[in-house]
Amino acid sequence: MPSYTAPTKDLQFVLHDVLKVSEQSTPGYNELDRDFTNAILEEAGKLNSEVVAPLNVVGDQEGCRLENGMVYTPKGFKDAFEQVKEGGWTGLDMPEEFGGQGMPAVIGTAVGELFSAANQAFTMYQGLTHGAASAILAHGTDAQKATYLPNMVSCEWTGTMNLTEPHCGTDLGLMRTKAEPQGDGTYKVSGQKIFISAGEHDMADNIIHLVLAKIPGGPEGIKGVSLFIVPKFIVNEDGSLGERNGVSVGNIEHKMGIHGNSTCVMNYDEATGYLLGTEHKGMRAMFTMMNEARLGVGMQGLAQAEAAYQNAVIYAKDRLQGRDVTGAKNPDGPADPLIVHPDIRRALMDQKSFIEGGRAFLLWGAQMIDEAHRAEDTDADGLVSLLTPIIKGFLTDEGYDMTVQAQQVYGGHGYIEEWGMSQFTRDARIAMIYEGANGVQALDLVGRKLGADGGKHVMAFFDLVKGFCKEHGDDEAMADFIAPLKTASKHLQSAGMYFMQNGMKNPNHALAGSYDFMHLFGHVCLGLMWARMARASLDALAAGTSDAAFHETKLTTARYYMARRLPASGMHLARIESGADTVMGLDAEAF
Amino acid sequence: MPSYTAPTKDLQFVLHDVLKVSEQSTPGYNELDRDFTNAILEEAGKLNSEVVAPLNVVGDQEGCRLENGMVYTPKGFKDAFEQVKEGGWTGLDMPEEFGGQGMPAVIGTAVGELFSAANQAFTMYQGLTHGAASAILAHGTDAQKATYLPNMVSCEWTGTMNLTEPHCGTDLGLMRTKAEPQGDGTYKVSGQKIFISAGEHDMADNIIHLVLAKIPGGPEGIKGVSLFIVPKFIVNEDGSLGERNGVSVGNIEHKMGIHGNSTCVMNYDEATGYLLGTEHKGMRAMFTMMNEARLGVGMQGLAQAEAAYQNAVIYAKDRLQGRDVTGAKNPDGPADPLIVHPDIRRALMDQKSFIEGGRAFLLWGAQMIDEAHRAEDTDADGLVSLLTPIIKGFLTDEGYDMTVQAQQVYGGHGYIEEWGMSQFTRDARIAMIYEGANGVQALDLVGRKLGADGGKHVMAFFDLVKGFCKEHGDDEAMADFIAPLKTASKHLQSAGMYFMQNGMKNPNHALAGSYDFMHLFGHVCLGLMWARMARASLDALAAGTSDAAFHETKLTTARYYMARRLPASGMHLARIESGADTVMGLDAEAF
Repeated sequence: MPSYTAPTKDLQFVLHDVLKVSEQSTPGYNELDRDFTNAILEEAGKLNSEVVAPLNVVGDQEGCRLENGMVYTPKGFKDAFEQVKEGGWTGLDMPEEFGGQGMPAVIGTAVGELFSAANQAFTMYQGLTHGAASAILAHGTDAQKATYLPNMVSCEWTGTMNLTEPHCGTDLGLMRTKAEPQGDGTYKVSGQKIFISAGEHDMADNIIHLVLAKIPGGPEGIKGVSLFIVPKFIVNEDGSLGERNGVSVGNIEHKMGIHGNSTCVMNYDEATGYLLGTEHKGMRAMFTMMNEARLGVGMQGLAQAEAAYQNAVIYAKDRLQGRDVTGAKNPDGPADPLIVHPDIRRALMDQKSFIEGGRAFLLWGAQMIDEAHRAEDTDADGLVSLLTPIIKGFLTDEGYDMTVQAQQVYGGHGYIEEWGMSQFTRDARIAMIYEGANGVQALDLVGRKLGADGGKHVMAFFDLVKGFCKEHGDDEAMADFIAPLKTASKHLQSAGMYFMQNGMKNPNHALAGSYDFMHLFGHVCLGLMWARMARASLDALAAGTSDAAFHETKLTTARYYMARRLPASGMHLARIESGADTVMGLDAEAF
Repeated sequence: MPSYTAPTKDLQFVLHDVLKVSEQSTPGYNELDRDFTNAILEEAGKLNSEVVAPLNVVGDQEGCRLENGMVYTPKGFKDAFEQVKEGGWTGLDMPEEFGGQGMPAVIGTAVGELFSAANQAFTMYQGLTHGAASAILAHGTDAQKATYLPNMVSCEWTGTMNLTEPHCGTDLGLMRTKAEPQGDGTYKVSGQKIFISAGEHDMADNIIHLVLAKIPGGPEGIKGVSLFIVPKFIVNEDGSLGERNGVSVGNIEHKMGIHGNSTCVMNYDEATGYLLGTEHKGMRAMFTMMNEARLGVGMQGLAQAEAAYQNAVIYAKDRLQGRDVTGAKNPDGPADPLIVHPDIRRALMDQKSFIEGGRAFLLWGAQMIDEAHRAEDTDADGLVSLLTPIIKGFLTDEGYDMTVQAQQVYGGHGYIEEWGMSQFTRDARIAMIYEGANGVQALDLVGRKLGADGGKHVMAFFDLVKGFCKEHGDDEAMADFIAPLKTASKHLQSAGMYFMQNGMKNPNHALAGSYDFMHLFGHVCLGLMWARMARASLDALAAGTSDAAFHETKLTTARYYMARRLPASGMHLARIESGADTVMGLDAEAF
């Protein structure tokens, strides 16, 4: 069975040596000294290694069970969930006013990685609750907040997001679920929603569904969509649970992975709903959840890659097969360990350099969210909004590929379920799909975010890269990092230029390159993070760090990323600059 | 449930317009006119669409069942297997002398794709039999051939390959299975083999296991391995079945995919074995099977991509979601079909251009096998031997990626097992692993094949590309294809040059780039095939073909490959030329 150990040291490096969190002026950051964050990460790591991770394979093999309208989670989930709640982990970055610990998103994200890596299916129960609570926090009335948030922050009650219907996912304007006003401020919600993660289960007293629906007579399409709070049990005025609402599970889905999470078909039959936010502005309210959710999904890609990588490393060191061509490394044994072979190294370095770069990227994103929310920094808000589809799309695509590479290290054993490597790929696969399939992320990036506010945020990104290159361009020790970053960044600019010059004439010239642009942008972001990490490690070495080996490893891994991963930028640019002609050249009948 | 239709038209195009099989002088090729091959493909297509493909999901969901030492295949497999046998498909390219139809490998391969695409798990039962029969054909005594081949060609008896043991897969020198000579020409074989596809099942009267084992006292390591025929039931002199041999199923594996194939742990307990070929030369005999098997596995990658693609196209045309940004294409409907969106097109074109290019590459490989075997053409033998690891490694890596892309077109529905798209990826995944994991293919390519016969075969490949470019370089209609092919081919040559110049000093400089080299080489091969296909389509159009739309589609798809896929060559070269320093730079402890 696979094991999991929290990468505390690497998280600490990113938080303190790279992002220098405790030196930032963002409210709440001054508390985040090394000892404090270390204590949190150690504690969360222990819980995840010992309690949450061992249930990962159990959840996969047992799955969820629907019986008489009730869903039963896999053995052990309920007890583990109690421990998570008792530790206060579910409200880590939620306001103290509602029982949370009020920590910044950057800590919530660092801890979130551990939970996601240990057991994605299990962690989704709290993840969805966090998303739903965030939407109530942002758009709810004071009464709604008081009614729902304390129990959601503690995860006594869990939450869900209900968007998709059988005939529509991305195009929510086609939605059929209706919400009829009852004249008393409540609505009767009727319709069917599918793919509802944590839709029903046995780990919470109540489930607070957030449901998108149309109020009859409202505007057509997406502009007529509103968001409703539909609790499984109506909450009485005194806070006690009242009658069962008209919401029930139609079925649980048989999925490729995340078997431990109950993905439900939910039927709403005149269920009592309460408007959240403004009539017909449901999409705006939902997007509050979705941006946060998209960062969380990007984290899942990274987290599954980390978990798979850790086990691939163990296997590569343990499994004896073949000899090092440059001379036996284990001459007294029957063969050398796999890790001596260059192609196994290549696979492990691909994984390691992606994971550590992605981790820094993600935490930088979380830091900008804190700047946006806590310091009302609109520039940070704009930049993280630009980067969100990249965090989601790039980290989940690459994260998935890395789980496949980790599985490959095991050879035939990687294909046998008992070893657990197949599960990492099957679980990671969903992250490329939900919260907006990655093609939709690319569309959001190129069609919406790139030109937002007159292109201000992408210009800010380029300025940031240029500034960094300029600042460190004369430092010879940085030459291995600055030159490749400049090249890749130039490729990204050329791609943006191509879109500007050709997308006006024909938007398909931009959209046909959107996916490659998302990946090109992702590589530049990770290139930037690696350059920043290299800088941090060079500084630490110059300052006489007591852990030189760690920083030397960082530098080698940074060089690997620059030499072996960043060259993808030229390929993506070539694809983008070939335009839409070959992409759109065929009639639909020709396929 | 997914559907499958044989791509007869495209196979006919490759066989006749590109490879021009009936004009070749290879023995047996003169019979292969258009009508003849069309009749075969139509008939095989019908059987696969109507009988074999509908069992694909059944096999996945039901799996195989072990009860009291017997393995039961999924419902319907046995009847379908009878129909396959009755149609004579199992011996299509086997010698007439043993009941086969004596057709060339190029036909066996074209038909093989249909079976693999329709149901990979099911088709493996005959695939393994074909491999084992080929080894007996090549290395067996006349008596062995007479005893086993007629029933194996007809698949009344099936076959297996037994290589892997729990502690060794790639490094077979570590093998522990023993074969004790009994003095009467027979051996007693004892040991455990794992991952034995079709190891035990209920569809054949006898199972002929080919087992690698060591004769005590023989040379150490891989040089002391011999190959044995170990039948499940001993065959009496009169051909009737005698006593049950000492071979039994220990377990059936729980795998990520190919659930319909019984992958067994096989225990040999003093089982009677008969030496196949020469003592201690078992690896050589096994390689006869393995080269054929590797082409067959490359075909599986392609075939799963084709099956997944066909369903992605159906879904993309059917599912209404969003609007074409350049103007509604389905103005009377609630939304446009997915296929109007540029990023969906990109995904479908990636798939289409890979599949059609890969199909041509594979059939070209089969044509060279025929030239090698039927015309004793040693140049063809050398070239196909060089290309075999690329056919296996590149086609299965890319084929897998394409199933993932096809699954992605379905959005959330791609993750739900009922739609069948997850199965394509789970089934395709094994092809990257078995018959030599793809990293081992890359090692074989760079460490062995590239320098074989003084590098003669790789030079022949470059001459072939150069010759083609020279021949068609002045034709303006070919400019879109020749220029990118030249560039990519130059990248491949530079990579080879890098290996020559640096691999001498340190073999890791070559091996660290082996995987990228395999992919770079694969892209050049597909680039060559696309240039040849473009030539064929231009010729057909010039000759006033009645199916201009087909050939125009080919030209657009060829342009897509050149513009959007071949640019990967530069990235692979950059990675290769970065050498081993960053790949091998870390101590094992640093991971």
